[in-house]
This record gives sequence, structure tokens and C-alpha cells, in this order.
Amino acid sequence: MRIALLGGTGDIGAGLTLRWGFDTTHELLVGSRDPEKARTKADEYETELASRGVETTIKGFENSMAADRADVVVLAVPAYHLVDTVESIADRLDGDTVLVSPAVGMKRDESGFHYNRPGAGSVAALAAGAKPATVPLVGAFHNLPAGGLADLDRTFEWDTLVFGDDEDAKSTVVDLAAEIDGLRPLDVGGLDNAAEVESVTPLLINVARENDGMHDLGVRFQ
Amino acid sequence: MRIALLGGTGDIGAGLTLRWGFDTTHELLVGSRDPEKARTKADEYETELASRGVETTIKGFENSMAADRADVVVLAVPAYHLVDTVESIADRLDGDTVLVSPAVGMKRDESGFHYNRPGAGSVAALAAGAKPATVPLVGAFHNLPAGGLADLDRTFEWDTLVFGDDEDAKSTVVDLAAEIDGLRPLDVGGLDNAAEVESVTPLLINVARENDGMHDLGVRFQ
Repeated sequence: MRIALLGGTGDIGAGLTLRWGFDTTHELLVGSRDPEKARTKADEYETELASRGVETTIKGFENSMAADRADVVVLAVPAYHLVDTVESIADRLDGDTVLVSPAVGMKRDESGFHYNRPGAGSVAALAAGAKPATVPLVGAFHNLPAGGLADLDRTFEWDTLVFGDDEDAKSTVVDLAAEIDGLRPLDVGGLDNAAEVESVTPLLINVARENDGMHDLGVRFQ
Repeated sequence: MRIALLGGTGDIGAGLTLRWGFDTTHELLVGSRDPEKARTKADEYETELASRGVETTIKGFENSMAADRADVVVLAVPAYHLVDTVESIADRLDGDTVLVSPAVGMKRDESGFHYNRPGAGSVAALAAGAKPATVPLVGAFHNLPAGGLADLDRTFEWDTLVFGDDEDAKSTVVDLAAEIDGLRPLDVGGLDNAAEVESVTPLLINVARENDGMHDLGVRFQ
């Protein structure tokens, strides 16, 4: 499967690219608004994987070029770039492409991080409103610590909550998540359940801030 | 320590009473609007604990009577009774009493359960607005499955997120939580961080609904 990670030069994009590169044989494309930056990062990921004995080719492209070539497009961009990013790639997508949103909107004040719920109901709903109607959107990979994901020496037992209104698309993303060692995908229903998933991310950050010795936290439902 | 569990006849009240009864020697008082019901349930809890070799006395009272005698008052009532309950016990509280809110407001639609955030910002903030100014309020025990907690045959490794603006009161509740075997209290800052904690509860229910073999879920940060 061909997976494009738009914003793949950022921290969660790096984590997912490295984990899929290490644990699977999927074809990985790093997208960025700046194609040169995408190529530089793709080379870095290749080098990191090669240093661990995994010889793979990771290519870098401008976001819409990466999306054009992909079966699954992960929108690993900041929440405030999500709609722009979806609009910028919309004409490269068709009904066979699965869009994945791991994006979370947060605000910070003196008490910590908070979920910044958009008027649309969730960040995923913003993306859903910007995409072509025939393209399915799935939410996943929200509550993962980017640093821990990108550190291939770290093992973990984390859950990722997966939601979406298209069952086939959701199933594709569940399978991709399950291929990452230590990651367990859990179905959490449709797009209307997005806000509760997205709001776990500021909570993870607050727990890490307030408790000594806890950092790069994920979550496990048990 | 003397702990009053208002609404202690309900499911989360039962779970906390049984666990503290089993794991600690704290004095436990079950509160209810109906004192007869409180006494009946208190007897049931005593019988359940005695069947496991724990001889302890648990007394039942009308809510305000239970609160009057307690060092810690747990508001184990439904969210829509929270303010009324706090107001009904307000004149029994003083600055030495720690109020604890495990309450969560939820609504349900065809897609699942959702956090029903009050205009005050959180359910805990509603309670904080109703209490005397000198009485500290701590949030804890929101994300625990009542059935699993009340089943003393069940072992677990669950976290409970504890928040509040009074550090001494929070420390008291952290210690009480840590005395329950398998429960790990995590500090999550002040009252302003309540909404993200409360909104985990509908998520736990949705995960249990959507995934075969998962039920009575708690959460672990790792």
C-alpha cells in the first residue's frame, strides 16, 4: 500500500513514517509544502532505518504530489493547516483514497493544555467539511507521543482510537495501525465521536507535565 | 479517616465503598437522600466484605448527616443532582472537609455517548460554584468502570486523574486513591483541567460498545 504522510516532516509524521518503515513494507511518501524539505526528511528517515538494517526507499514530494500517488493520505499537519491542506490536495483525491486525520486542536493557558473544540464539533469534522464528498475520512493516531513513536528504541503498548463513517476505510486504517508493533487500534464509532478522542491529547500532555518521571505518554484502555 | 460517599447506594459509590472497605481501615459512611436505603446498602456492603473475611462496620445515613461526620465527602451522585446535593450539605461542611467530585455529564445519541460540557466549563466547576468558598473541591475517580470496581474478584491496573486548586486537599485524595490496590492516582493540575478528564468517560463507554470482548474499561497512561 502507498501511504502519503502530508506534513511528514513534522513530529507525528516522522514517528509514523519511521514506524511503518521499520515494521512494514508499505511504500512511504513524505509530503511537505516545501518539496526540498520533504526530500531531505525522507533521506533522513531512510538513513535512520538503514542504520537499523532496514533498507527501504522513502520519497519526498510537495504535498499534493504525494497525495496524488497514495492509497492512504495521512494529514499529519497542525490543526490550523488542516483545512488548507485538504483543499490544496482535493483535486488529487478520488473515492479510492482514504484520508486520515490525526490532528488535534489545543490551546494553552497557565493551568495547562486544553482541547480547543472547533465550532464544527471536532477537528476531524473540519477536515470532513473540506474534502470531496466521495472521499472517506478516518480519524486515528491522535493520542500518540510523537517523540516516543519516532524513537525506534522505545517499545510500547499504546492504543489508538479509530473513528469514521465509512467502515471499509476505517478497516483499512485499523489494519495499518495494527501493523505497528505495540500499537492496538480500537474502533470508537463514527465521526460524531471525534471530540472525545481528540481531547485526550491535551490530557496526556497535562499528565506528563504534572507527574515526575512521566513523559511521552500514550494511553491504554484495559 | 472518615469518608462519606453521598449517593453511595449507586454504582460508583458501591465500587468505591467496597474497595476502600476491602483495602483500607477507613471509616466509611454511605449517604443517600433516603436514609433507609443508605442503611440497607451499607448492610449489603458489610455482608459482601464479611464474605471475604473483612469484618468492618459501614453505616448508612441521609446525605447531609453522612457529610456532617466526614473528613472527605465523595459526591458519587449523577451530574444532574450534583449542585442540589452540594447545596443540601453546604451548612454541614467546613474548611477541613474535602469535597470530591467523580461526576461526569454525558448525553447519548445514535453514534454513542458524548461529554455534555456544562456552560460552567466542567461538571466539577458546577460543584465548585455551589460549595462554600472555604471548602476545597478535588476531582477524582471519573474514569473507573463501576462494575469492575465493585467486583472484588477483579484485579486491575487503572489510573485515576486527580485535579484541584487546593494542593493539600488534592494530596489527601491522591493518598486515598493510592490505597486502593491497582489504582494509580495521577495529578492533572487544577480545576481548569477538569473537562478533558470528565470527557474520557464517554470515550471508555464508546470503546467498550464498539470492540468485542472489551467491557468495564479503565484507562492507563504509559
